[in-house]
Amino acid sequence: MSNIKVIIASDSVGETGELVAKACLSQFNIEESDDVLIRYPYIESEDNVDDVIDLAKSKKAIVVFTIITPELRKYIKQELVTENVPSVDIMGPLMNILEGQSEEAPYYEPGRVHRLDEDYFKKIEAIEFAVKYDDGKDASGLDKADIVLIGVSRTSKTPLSQYLAHKKYKVMNVPLMPEVTPPKELFQVDPKKCVGLKINPVSLNKIRKERLAQLGLKDTASYANDKRIQEELEYFNEVIGKIGCPVIDVSEKAIEETANQILNHVEGRLNIKG
Amino acid sequence: MSNIKVIIASDSVGETGELVAKACLSQFNIEESDDVLIRYPYIESEDNVDDVIDLAKSKKAIVVFTIITPELRKYIKQELVTENVPSVDIMGPLMNILEGQSEEAPYYEPGRVHRLDEDYFKKIEAIEFAVKYDDGKDASGLDKADIVLIGVSRTSKTPLSQYLAHKKYKVMNVPLMPEVTPPKELFQVDPKKCVGLKINPVSLNKIRKERLAQLGLKDTASYANDKRIQEELEYFNEVIGKIGCPVIDVSEKAIEETANQILNHVEGRLNIKG
Repeated sequence: MSNIKVIIASDSVGETGELVAKACLSQFNIEESDDVLIRYPYIESEDNVDDVIDLAKSKKAIVVFTIITPELRKYIKQELVTENVPSVDIMGPLMNILEGQSEEAPYYEPGRVHRLDEDYFKKIEAIEFAVKYDDGKDASGLDKADIVLIGVSRTSKTPLSQYLAHKKYKVMNVPLMPEVTPPKELFQVDPKKCVGLKINPVSLNKIRKERLAQLGLKDTASYANDKRIQEELEYFNEVIGKIGCPVIDVSEKAIEETANQILNHVEGRLNIKG
Repeated sequence: MSNIKVIIASDSVGETGELVAKACLSQFNIEESDDVLIRYPYIESEDNVDDVIDLAKSKKAIVVFTIITPELRKYIKQELVTENVPSVDIMGPLMNILEGQSEEAPYYEPGRVHRLDEDYFKKIEAIEFAVKYDDGKDASGLDKADIVLIGVSRTSKTPLSQYLAHKKYKVMNVPLMPEVTPPKELFQVDPKKCVGLKINPVSLNKIRKERLAQLGLKDTASYANDKRIQEELEYFNEVIGKIGCPVIDVSEKAIEETANQILNHVEGRLNIKG
């Protein structure tokens, strides 16, 4: 294992830099521990920059920075070079291109991506919506939802709903099991906004066994039983057939990947793999 | 308004590039519309790269790319230069530094950041936890939670819980209102994991009036009444005083910013502004 340290230096919260760093670090055999990433948010003065550079030198760290104001960006770049600290400017290259193409000057306001505008409140509303209408608790959500996810237990319905909520979609999810008749509204809702989440029985069995272990239950419970799973999946196919909506396979897929497919379907966005 | 287009080209979902692009675009007077950002996920061949470049040329778009495999990264960079398409390599600069510092070669596996490892399942569990224990529904969550958020209605408890869940914290939130005695467990739980969310009456009144309007209700309801709000905030102070936990002001703050403060408190992470 390598002794790598990365400082995320930002004039705002530092989320963007953190995501880039995590994506890169995931390519190396490094344990995700608090020791690798060091956050240094809300940089607003040359003193703060000097602190970051001192910290980087003492920790032998790489500095990944997202600094918007031109003076401070210039200062940090210059100091990083002078002090010989390896660093990456995350926003600079794209900012430069955009400045060249835009007819107006940028705002240069740190944290503007978090401004409390219409989009922000739409996102908050979508997050609350997904919590409120999770697990099909209230069929009145079906009408209001932008996307309805339908699947048996343990097909990532809840985390998928939340992920899509962060993209400002109001998502309701409806669990299916043979013993419970789904709300009649499910068959009246526009099938274009419905997506079935299918999963292969082997993956589902594995996930459910892990879930039972986590809950301290034996894996002989019918929940993780092959016959039971078969029954549930058949019931799923039957209901989805009636609704007439597309089905996405979630087996062994991360929510980010499944969500990407759902978005392609819902938005009719470019999807080269069909 | 400028006629700017950005293609997010990725060998995985394209989240990282999208976040960088959004952070930069937020600095310009550009409406967030589907027309500005074009996603091109799952690039895995030179043909896919050629498609991206054709698209960029026809749309006069900037290409923001996150490509992990060295051959494809080299190919896209070379073609972008040849075809004179403005572009930004998001992962390349940091990957190069990390490759230089790491003792082992990178995995070069696209989408590795989404691998279904322990951290992934911890995140999923945390998201489900926050949904399950939202709104203080079940006091048994207090013991299991890593963080307990306490506040009156409309202090962003639900979206904050979800945001922190994405950082793998199990968060329970507990609403306070004078008429409902909080669960007794709230006064037994470790105050170190509790955070009160305070808000100034003017902001709260504004948010609640908007909320009522959204629900089609009149803003004369007691919910958005100054006296009522004063009462609730006094009750909040009383309960928080009993618990003895820190309080964070959420007035006019985006959830990302409040979450940053909560993380600083909970993790004792570096917080230069105290």
